[in-house]
Amino acid sequence: MTETFVIAQGGGPTAVINQTLAGVVVEARKRYPGARILGALNGVRGIRDANFVDLSALSEQELRRHAATPSAALGSTRDKPDIAYCETILKRLRQTGATAFVYIGGNDTAATQQILTEAAGGDIAFVHAPKTIDNDLVKNDHTPGFISAAQFIASAFVSVDLDFRALPGIYVGIVMGRHAGFLTAAAAAWQQDSDGAPHLVYVPERALSAGRFVDDVRAVVSRYGRCIVAMSEGVTAEDGRSVVESIVPSDRLERDAHGNVRLSGGDLGMAIEHALREGLPGVRARVDTFGYLPRGNISTINETDAREAFEAGVFAVEAAERGGGSVALQYDGGITAPRLVPLANVAGKTRHLPDDFLSPEGNQISPQCRAYLERLMPRRFELAKPFV
Amino acid sequence: MTETFVIAQGGGPTAVINQTLAGVVVEARKRYPGARILGALNGVRGIRDANFVDLSALSEQELRRHAATPSAALGSTRDKPDIAYCETILKRLRQTGATAFVYIGGNDTAATQQILTEAAGGDIAFVHAPKTIDNDLVKNDHTPGFISAAQFIASAFVSVDLDFRALPGIYVGIVMGRHAGFLTAAAAAWQQDSDGAPHLVYVPERALSAGRFVDDVRAVVSRYGRCIVAMSEGVTAEDGRSVVESIVPSDRLERDAHGNVRLSGGDLGMAIEHALREGLPGVRARVDTFGYLPRGNISTINETDAREAFEAGVFAVEAAERGGGSVALQYDGGITAPRLVPLANVAGKTRHLPDDFLSPEGNQISPQCRAYLERLMPRRFELAKPFV
Repeated sequence: MTETFVIAQGGGPTAVINQTLAGVVVEARKRYPGARILGALNGVRGIRDANFVDLSALSEQELRRHAATPSAALGSTRDKPDIAYCETILKRLRQTGATAFVYIGGNDTAATQQILTEAAGGDIAFVHAPKTIDNDLVKNDHTPGFISAAQFIASAFVSVDLDFRALPGIYVGIVMGRHAGFLTAAAAAWQQDSDGAPHLVYVPERALSAGRFVDDVRAVVSRYGRCIVAMSEGVTAEDGRSVVESIVPSDRLERDAHGNVRLSGGDLGMAIEHALREGLPGVRARVDTFGYLPRGNISTINETDAREAFEAGVFAVEAAERGGGSVALQYDGGITAPRLVPLANVAGKTRHLPDDFLSPEGNQISPQCRAYLERLMPRRFELAKPFV
Repeated sequence: MTETFVIAQGGGPTAVINQTLAGVVVEARKRYPGARILGALNGVRGIRDANFVDLSALSEQELRRHAATPSAALGSTRDKPDIAYCETILKRLRQTGATAFVYIGGNDTAATQQILTEAAGGDIAFVHAPKTIDNDLVKNDHTPGFISAAQFIASAFVSVDLDFRALPGIYVGIVMGRHAGFLTAAAAAWQQDSDGAPHLVYVPERALSAGRFVDDVRAVVSRYGRCIVAMSEGVTAEDGRSVVESIVPSDRLERDAHGNVRLSGGDLGMAIEHALREGLPGVRARVDTFGYLPRGNISTINETDAREAFEAGVFAVEAAERGGGSVALQYDGGITAPRLVPLANVAGKTRHLPDDFLSPEGNQISPQCRAYLERLMPRRFELAKPFV
């Protein structure tokens, strides 16, 4: 029987998700000469609507070019299929003659693969290949896409710190991250000196009040003459809801198919500006919402990230041969390598910053977190210390 | 007599302003062995307060490291000295034994040098060395600092375009630029295809109404299924004021010492989000304000920019020998080189996007503008065309 691989990409794009796609194609062609390899357009929607592109005969050069291009070449979707939707997908996969379906995405994608595995009778191997800039997949040391986005964040904070040494004030950079603070923590990965930015780091894992925030900033300003803050868009208020949810009028709150409130607007930034204007009047304060800039930026594609994403794709083919499951990047004995774990162990679960990755005050990363980030993305440059 | 150079940096930092500083130091030491070279901290404030750092004996290695570090190593200032302030500066310069004062900055910096030249009797050479990410200095083909910031913008729009091909919607990126649209125009420098982003470009040189904006976006969405917009923070309303000025309550409008309204807040972004929500209900729309991220970002330091900034510093020393003036980067016969022009020709003047750099509709750049940008920052990569 001819092997037929179906591949799709789900959720938010990353800088290296096409490396994983390329890894699957390269390895499937190697293991199964003559295999059919179909890309489903826009995630599971492409399967539902039988909207495929044939990747079997892509030249090496085309494949390499796709791999080096950020964002999802096959398009993506935010659809979170229920059981009925999954039955349609399964029907289409069988009509297509699929022997394996590799779905590259986050924990919702793993959940879809789990439903499909349970609905099918073992005739198709369902593989989840990891992808997320949020770094929030359990069973993974880190996830493909995270390091490149983290490099954007780390570069930005080193750069803004230099800017605010020259023209002092308060700066708040708001970083993507709904439930997990890894990406925001990465702001501190390349901190220059003991007085280097970010001086404060706020993540969703710790509740924050406006009063506490202003007090923290005031203390840093009086100490260093400036204050650079990294804040997750998903930072939580003391009632456990996201701050965004508590400040945006309910008729303006957008929700996606997963019920998630949209956090990426300017509301949080405006609320922060307001709190600083009230609490520290007369002090120059600037707030930038990084938004989509870090996610798949061609300026900060990290080589390790690209290589690991490709290897995750290669390993997904072996995972299919072994009957399916979730590919997880694990770190053991000084080496990061993909391993196969049960879908149920990853599906729908969120990994948070470990408690010991934050300072006791909860407003800065700990030495453990710094060591983790330095392992993933060692700083490769040395900057001069300004005269001011 | 021992030559004594005083150097200062003014206005917003850039990625390469320290290259110019290094250029001055290297060349001054070469031409005048034994010269004293003093850096004034925080621009003219450092002269007023006799706050200097001695740069004469900096090692080559330290100098190179400073040159490669973004932002103003000497600190900066937004002070715009009047005649009384300039007299104090002049007094301090004479007390210091200064024979030349090189001030690296934009058109306000040139204006300060002009006042000082007129107040002094020719005993000190006043040189303005160009710097601005806004690219808005007259007599210059382009300015040091622009290309690096422009590269950040161009990279961001190429990247976001790929993201919004995968998950369609409307994206508006708001870019620094008070009066001149060069940096916003740079969003289109690396446009990929005929349908590539940005689909719309709005600059301060053309008035924009909310209705026109929504109509433009609607037309692009219906044509391409997505719409990516580059908008200057200084975009003007039909009454000639900046849009920010027309939407922010006057008691919240911040002004700097130059009387400029602060544009960098989230207000414009929120107004845009509101206009899109009202005008195109149900369409996913995201607005990011790039803010400080492009200005001195270590991820997008452009080599040509760095070299030209250094050369501008080297030439500033020759300019001092010739009695002072403004250093201008001019393009002639296929070569960009620094030339000396009178301070009065540059001081306080703003260069705008030429009329023929915009499409007749005023919402896109023209082929002339594209050719200009491609000359400054040729695209050095080729990306794959996504399957969607």
